[in-house]
Amino acid sequence: MADRSHIVKSYEHELGQLRSMMAQMGGIVENQVALALSAIADRNEEAADAAARQDPEVDQLEREVEGLAIRLLALRSPMAGDLREIVAALKITGDLERIGDYASSIARRSLRIRMPENQISLSGLRSMGRLVQENLRRSIDAITQQDSNRAMEVWHADRAVDEYYTALFRELVTYMMEDARNIRACTELLFIAKNLERIGDHATNIAERVFYAVTGDNLPSLRPRGTPATALTVAETMQEPDVR
Amino acid sequence: MADRSHIVKSYEHELGQLRSMMAQMGGIVENQVALALSAIADRNEEAADAAARQDPEVDQLEREVEGLAIRLLALRSPMAGDLREIVAALKITGDLERIGDYASSIARRSLRIRMPENQISLSGLRSMGRLVQENLRRSIDAITQQDSNRAMEVWHADRAVDEYYTALFRELVTYMMEDARNIRACTELLFIAKNLERIGDHATNIAERVFYAVTGDNLPSLRPRGTPATALTVAETMQEPDVR
Repeated sequence: MADRSHIVKSYEHELGQLRSMMAQMGGIVENQVALALSAIADRNEEAADAAARQDPEVDQLEREVEGLAIRLLALRSPMAGDLREIVAALKITGDLERIGDYASSIARRSLRIRMPENQISLSGLRSMGRLVQENLRRSIDAITQQDSNRAMEVWHADRAVDEYYTALFRELVTYMMEDARNIRACTELLFIAKNLERIGDHATNIAERVFYAVTGDNLPSLRPRGTPATALTVAETMQEPDVR
Repeated sequence: MADRSHIVKSYEHELGQLRSMMAQMGGIVENQVALALSAIADRNEEAADAAARQDPEVDQLEREVEGLAIRLLALRSPMAGDLREIVAALKITGDLERIGDYASSIARRSLRIRMPENQISLSGLRSMGRLVQENLRRSIDAITQQDSNRAMEVWHADRAVDEYYTALFRELVTYMMEDARNIRACTELLFIAKNLERIGDHATNIAERVFYAVTGDNLPSLRPRGTPATALTVAETMQEPDVR
């Protein structure tokens, strides 16, 4: 009987370890996104370097989570909610790793943008960045607290991210058409906006997976969405950008 | 004893089912990529629609694989190689789902490209597409045959995909700078090239996961890579595009 309680304790201990590794991975990735946004907003080269330098640590944590998950599955035969949580952890680390990758890509691109300060406004990108950051924080809270309500909030907020992206896409194409000297910078900014939109998407994926792990139910497969930029006509992209 | 052999048989049967679902998912995604490339190369609108229409089926298969994997983990206590294969399947479906997503995105973008046939050459994009398609086929063969040598081939070939992307990026930025009327089409083509590059990346992820599932060893964490487009200077992007 003493032996059995020992087994249960070390099982709880390992499950706790898995959760703390997920929290750590989430924390690093959140930090990478914050650094990448500071790299754009403040032209902060150190922040850009710091964001990119954290990639190997994220990759390493992904492998460690996978190793621990395999160990738990092989030795502890977890059931029901615990099993769903471990399977979700395996999928979520993939999303977190991608988010880290996108943050690094934003940081590296920010270093290559050279443009007249007054010609291209970055305010839309900054607002989009804050919203994505907020959504990511919520999705990581949802993981660490195994909170399905938090997860549902993220899932609803993704629509606003898509709307920001659509507006930014129009604005940047307009800048490029106005002056060929804007093309190089705006190309980078287009990819940065796209990367932010993908980070938002992965935050939503995480929310969906947490929701399933906690409740055993799926969120509807069609998310609430804004107008995709892909649905714009050529005429629409020629419009003046919104005043921000 | 008869009961035990029955259990073993249905375990083998379920593992076989998991493999056949992975093969089915791989087949659909491969087909989506083929349709998306035909949509670009031949301005084939039907192909573009067909590519996008397969997304829900891919999503459904991802959920089914997850359900079966959870069932296998809960009821069959798989060990060693089988356990690694099931965990790899959970991760690989995520990569396949993303590849399908990128293929749909390429297909939708192809419908919006309107440009003078003779002004922008698509030959670089076509070659890149063929290479990515070949790599994807190899990575799906690696899954269905659990073949680590196939996996290694994919991993080595990703470098050439990156080099194609870098060359295309330069070419497209040059077209935009030469004539503002190219901007809208080239923006779509830039994203299409990026999507192809990401498909190649996910094929490499799949290869890495198959290699681990089969051998228990990781491929080195640093892949062989071409010059990233992100490392180009502004001066370099002003060069004339390569003659193709």
